[in-house]
Amino acid sequence: MSSNTFGNIFTLTTFGESHGDSIGGIIDGCPSGKKINIDLVQNDLNRRKPGQSKIVTQRKEDDKVEILSGLFEGKTTGTPIGFVIKNKDHKSTDYSHIKESYRPSHADYVYEKKYGNRDYRGGGRSSARETACRVVAGSIAKQILSNIQINAYVSKVGSISINKPHTELDFNNIEKNNVRCPDSSTAKEMEELIMKVRKDGDTVGGVITCVIKNTPLGIGEPVFKKLHSELGAAMLSINAVKGFEYGSGFDGTKMRGSQHNDIINPDGTTKTNNSGGIQGGISNGMDIYFNVAFKPVATIMKNQESIDSEGKKTSIKGRGRHDPCVVPRAVPIVEAMAALVILDYILINKSRK
Amino acid sequence: MSSNTFGNIFTLTTFGESHGDSIGGIIDGCPSGKKINIDLVQNDLNRRKPGQSKIVTQRKEDDKVEILSGLFEGKTTGTPIGFVIKNKDHKSTDYSHIKESYRPSHADYVYEKKYGNRDYRGGGRSSARETACRVVAGSIAKQILSNIQINAYVSKVGSISINKPHTELDFNNIEKNNVRCPDSSTAKEMEELIMKVRKDGDTVGGVITCVIKNTPLGIGEPVFKKLHSELGAAMLSINAVKGFEYGSGFDGTKMRGSQHNDIINPDGTTKTNNSGGIQGGISNGMDIYFNVAFKPVATIMKNQESIDSEGKKTSIKGRGRHDPCVVPRAVPIVEAMAALVILDYILINKSRK
Amino acid sequence: MSSNTFGNIFTLTTFGESHGDSIGGIIDGCPSGKKINIDLVQNDLNRRKPGQSKIVTQRKEDDKVEILSGLFEGKTTGTPIGFVIKNKDHKSTDYSHIKESYRPSHADYVYEKKYGNRDYRGGGRSSARETACRVVAGSIAKQILSNIQINAYVSKVGSISINKPHTELDFNNIEKNNVRCPDSSTAKEMEELIMKVRKDGDTVGGVITCVIKNTPLGIGEPVFKKLHSELGAAMLSINAVKGFEYGSGFDGTKMRGSQHNDIINPDGTTKTNNSGGIQGGISNGMDIYFNVAFKPVATIMKNQESIDSEGKKTSIKGRGRHDPCVVPRAVPIVEAMAALVILDYILINKSRK
Amino acid sequence: MSSNTFGNIFTLTTFGESHGDSIGGIIDGCPSGKKINIDLVQNDLNRRKPGQSKIVTQRKEDDKVEILSGLFEGKTTGTPIGFVIKNKDHKSTDYSHIKESYRPSHADYVYEKKYGNRDYRGGGRSSARETACRVVAGSIAKQILSNIQINAYVSKVGSISINKPHTELDFNNIEKNNVRCPDSSTAKEMEELIMKVRKDGDTVGGVITCVIKNTPLGIGEPVFKKLHSELGAAMLSINAVKGFEYGSGFDGTKMRGSQHNDIINPDGTTKTNNSGGIQGGISNGMDIYFNVAFKPVATIMKNQESIDSEGKKTSIKGRGRHDPCVVPRAVPIVEAMAALVILDYILINKSRK
Repeated sequence: MSSNTFGNIFTLTTFGESHGDSIGGIIDGCPSGKKINIDLVQNDLNRRKPGQSKIVTQRKEDDKVEILSGLFEGKTTGTPIGFVIKNKDHKSTDYSHIKESYRPSHADYVYEKKYGNRDYRGGGRSSARETACRVVAGSIAKQILSNIQINAYVSKVGSISINKPHTELDFNNIEKNNVRCPDSSTAKEMEELIMKVRKDGDTVGGVITCVIKNTPLGIGEPVFKKLHSELGAAMLSINAVKGFEYGSGFDGTKMRGSQHNDIINPDGTTKTNNSGGIQGGISNGMDIYFNVAFKPVATIMKNQESIDSEGKKTSIKGRGRHDPCVVPRAVPIVEAMAALVILDYILINKSRK
Repeated sequence: MSSNTFGNIFTLTTFGESHGDSIGGIIDGCPSGKKINIDLVQNDLNRRKPGQSKIVTQRKEDDKVEILSGLFEGKTTGTPIGFVIKNKDHKSTDYSHIKESYRPSHADYVYEKKYGNRDYRGGGRSSARETACRVVAGSIAKQILSNIQINAYVSKVGSISINKPHTELDFNNIEKNNVRCPDSSTAKEMEELIMKVRKDGDTVGGVITCVIKNTPLGIGEPVFKKLHSELGAAMLSINAVKGFEYGSGFDGTKMRGSQHNDIINPDGTTKTNNSGGIQGGISNGMDIYFNVAFKPVATIMKNQESIDSEGKKTSIKGRGRHDPCVVPRAVPIVEAMAALVILDYILINKSRK
Repeated sequence: MSSNTFGNIFTLTTFGESHGDSIGGIIDGCPSGKKINIDLVQNDLNRRKPGQSKIVTQRKEDDKVEILSGLFEGKTTGTPIGFVIKNKDHKSTDYSHIKESYRPSHADYVYEKKYGNRDYRGGGRSSARETACRVVAGSIAKQILSNIQINAYVSKVGSISINKPHTELDFNNIEKNNVRCPDSSTAKEMEELIMKVRKDGDTVGGVITCVIKNTPLGIGEPVFKKLHSELGAAMLSINAVKGFEYGSGFDGTKMRGSQHNDIINPDGTTKTNNSGGIQGGISNGMDIYFNVAFKPVATIMKNQESIDSEGKKTSIKGRGRHDPCVVPRAVPIVEAMAALVILDYILINKSRK
Repeated sequence: MSSNTFGNIFTLTTFGESHGDSIGGIIDGCPSGKKINIDLVQNDLNRRKPGQSKIVTQRKEDDKVEILSGLFEGKTTGTPIGFVIKNKDHKSTDYSHIKESYRPSHADYVYEKKYGNRDYRGGGRSSARETACRVVAGSIAKQILSNIQINAYVSKVGSISINKPHTELDFNNIEKNNVRCPDSSTAKEMEELIMKVRKDGDTVGGVITCVIKNTPLGIGEPVFKKLHSELGAAMLSINAVKGFEYGSGFDGTKMRGSQHNDIINPDGTTKTNNSGGIQGGISNGMDIYFNVAFKPVATIMKNQESIDSEGKKTSIKGRGRHDPCVVPRAVPIVEAMAALVILDYILINKSRK
């Protein structure tokens, strides 16, 4: 029951506050003898980092990962992989405005009540900065899962959405625009909306879709550790996530069984894939796909009513540089958490026979 | 990593196939000295059991729970609570039609491929019959959580939905109709739809909403064991579930931050509750509410194409008595899983100071 | 953190009080497709059960195991194996003498203080009756570990001990006498001592040695889950156990490094085996062997001073039929726990590459 | 199942090889609002570090701990505490002699076979250097357990032992000599033996005794997580440990029940304490005490036969500076592991009512 550990066999334990010395983590249970390219890890970190484009927060952070153990001569040794990412300029900022009042729809208030004290510098542990550690581990997992393709993309920003199934999209386009939406015309609309929202000092939510190709049949552990149950838990643990659906999802509830059922072909594939690649909690070899809902970022550049630490009414307004929409930067986080689940469950499955 | 165990401190481990001798479970970590009324447990089982109304499967099963340990003189002793529910007439039925072919959108095929063999009698371990054990444990948890109210209800069947927030509904009406929908006119429409679907030999999906009142502030374990992450995993582990959203959920993605943020009142409550009672993974004392999406039942009374164990095309059709819509019977299951999570997390929280 | 669950991948969860309806358990993570012979399981239970010879308690209990799930057509299905063992005549006995006073060196007092109440009938959950469930699971594990031989035997009763290393003993003799000591002349002395102690209304302690042959090299999970660490935890969890040592053990502390080091042969075997088959927490392919110390049984047929539930001095004396020495019946329990560890760790090791 | 994580609620996860960049760890589940004095942590590290006296290895290492997160304004925040200890001069040494051959009774051979490769620099992950991280976490745990005294001391080196029970020793003397033996004349003999053994280029084993005073009654989680079972697992996970016994231990096996039973006084204390402060796996409020057996260090300054990576016979001899006897430096490690268990179990116990 370590709440800062994710996974069962391949595990990630993380530490660090947004404005402490550093953040970091320990990956345990990593299979030995796997070649890991740190440049690819850094590349995924760069996809998540602030300041990468005009539609994200303009904070400057390097997010440079240092591997401290577990790799020897370029390969995993089977021992824990420790890593850190230094926080930059973590001592210079002024946090007096959030030290003495609670930001609406942030975790400030509940952290202080739960733990009795809190590191008020920039959200402390509740900051999404923590997700950089997930990207490190997920990126390593993706390299080990070399035959499996995991692609996430932005499918919705506010009310603008791609109206095509993932099978009709070219994933090579995802990284070709700032939004990480593989449909270029929709991406443009999304980008315009985000720019407009920023101008308003406001924020907007969105949806990320993730597609996992080539997962072998048989991955998933009924009855409580069904594959989609763990994927759901993984996604819901990401900051700002409000919902998860896989396969036909919420829309599938409107369908009849006769429409919804996926007919099995003689080769074991299915004619349709409303099941989202998972039946009874176990992968069936078809594409696994799911949607993740992100709320609008809580920090806005407008005055909002709130209370201070003595329960008195006060007014609060975001300072510094924040994201008008979190989904473009959350794409590598969704991929990372998906990779952690899939690799973990593939390793578990090895012990089942 | 026991995939048939749920929970961290208050845990439930279950066993049993739909057509074996019996199903059952072990509850561990139950606080001692708590009075448990077995009649209330049986009552929740009766809400789940087949044959309870005309809109559910007409199979007859008693679902009588026997407690084997852990209670002494009517109170919990702090030792594990073992229990069984006998399967009725489990030897008499004919399963030849599913022994040699795989039912579409069931787990038959993936179980056989994953494990190398399967108990083909009625779905075996993948049958929703297993959820009766969850209801037993959840019902015991609900009794221990005496100050916390957990109410689930059907909010949607096919395209028919209640168009009111939970705050405008009277939960006393939930058990007054067969559908378990607290809005009586909508309930009637839903019932008619289910009867029509049954007549067609077909099935239909739906949504269950669950509301948890009076959870103390401070429950939830960031960063990977956020309260909504565990609730999501719990719900997604229920048979036929395809999605989970809490608070503003998927609709919240369309909102602006300035609309979505929940302003904090001087007493710590919030003016709105888009957060769904959870901020940063920790309960804030407001109502926790979430939606759970259920797909249409896969067993239909129509011929469907499929394959047999040698990969040859065949035709298959449901036999016996099945549910045209699973949501009315799933209401106590959703409540049970919610209770398991809330009690478990309240116990965890005791160890945090 | 389920304290009534043992293991990581292959897990056993148990329930039951000595004088409740029944005891039982759930085995999870059992590989699928393994043939299990229930007669062999029953045979191990019979080696543990009361009344089997004149040197053990003369209570009569059948200890008949009933398998409720997880086996189909004689093979494991990969789903949880539920089982129960009914308690016999559990309602008839008089426990008034221990209801109101605490037996010295039993768990009565600490259970009542820890949990606030206790099932005072015959020790309740703290009774060694619970170990029958371990024998069931261990016996199933032994069948799956078909190439690995696990043999435990009594090496010491009071001050009488075998003065030979395990390599000079014929394990075929273990079951040929009531004590389960493979050296027949020592067995005779031990038996005489036990009979004398019983006549005195007293009890005596002893040591069980366990030898595991043919464990593959590479089993064990540093740094906290070293193979001997888990074996130690397993043995120390058995009722009445006070110590665990492996390889050279406590005697090895007197040696010099130059004597103690096990020189490696070109084939990977070692010339000596002071390491007890485990180096750095990982099996090296040599025989694994360890000793387990059992205290004298606490229930004696003599008057002893104690206190009652109001803290007043009282006198207490064992009633009914109890073991004068626990080690002969504990042999299958030690084997069972060893089998659970070895199988679990072999399964874990499959996920390491 | 993270094998580099110890504990259930208060957990420690560690990483790091002896000659990599650094070692470190993450403490999770630490209660919030606790004042931590880092100087006291450093003091315990200094008790473990090389070069502290003439009877230990003369390697120079600073072992300076850096805390990276989880503390704010001198107090714990309830979030994970990350820390690192840099390895000094880790790049300069020559390891060619152990790169190509396996040291007898070290883990070189089994690591290479289990994982397929290994970091051969100074033992890599199997080095006892890893235990410095345990001392950090244990020292923090000791500060939180302010009312509970945990004292370990050397009770035996080779055949020289203290022949007094712990109740007759003055623990203030432990740190007054290099051996950490509270009996000064015995300490002198031990020191002489260690110096003699070093001169011989050899090593010798020993025993550490640990005494825990003031543990509240009720700590321990039957049936598989008995307090002594977890203490045993903790101690057996320390490098070079071969055995664990608590209370009367192996000697108790020779006793009769009538001698061994601890009579309960009206105030709940016991007249004797053969139980070692634990009955049925639960603390009874008396002193908890146990012995831990350490084998002689495997690295000796003499030629030994071994094999190289191609299975050919070779000769190997220790280089550099090594401990002739490990027990003086292992005293703070034993205390640390004891503190981790006791704090973890006190936290677990809070969730039991």
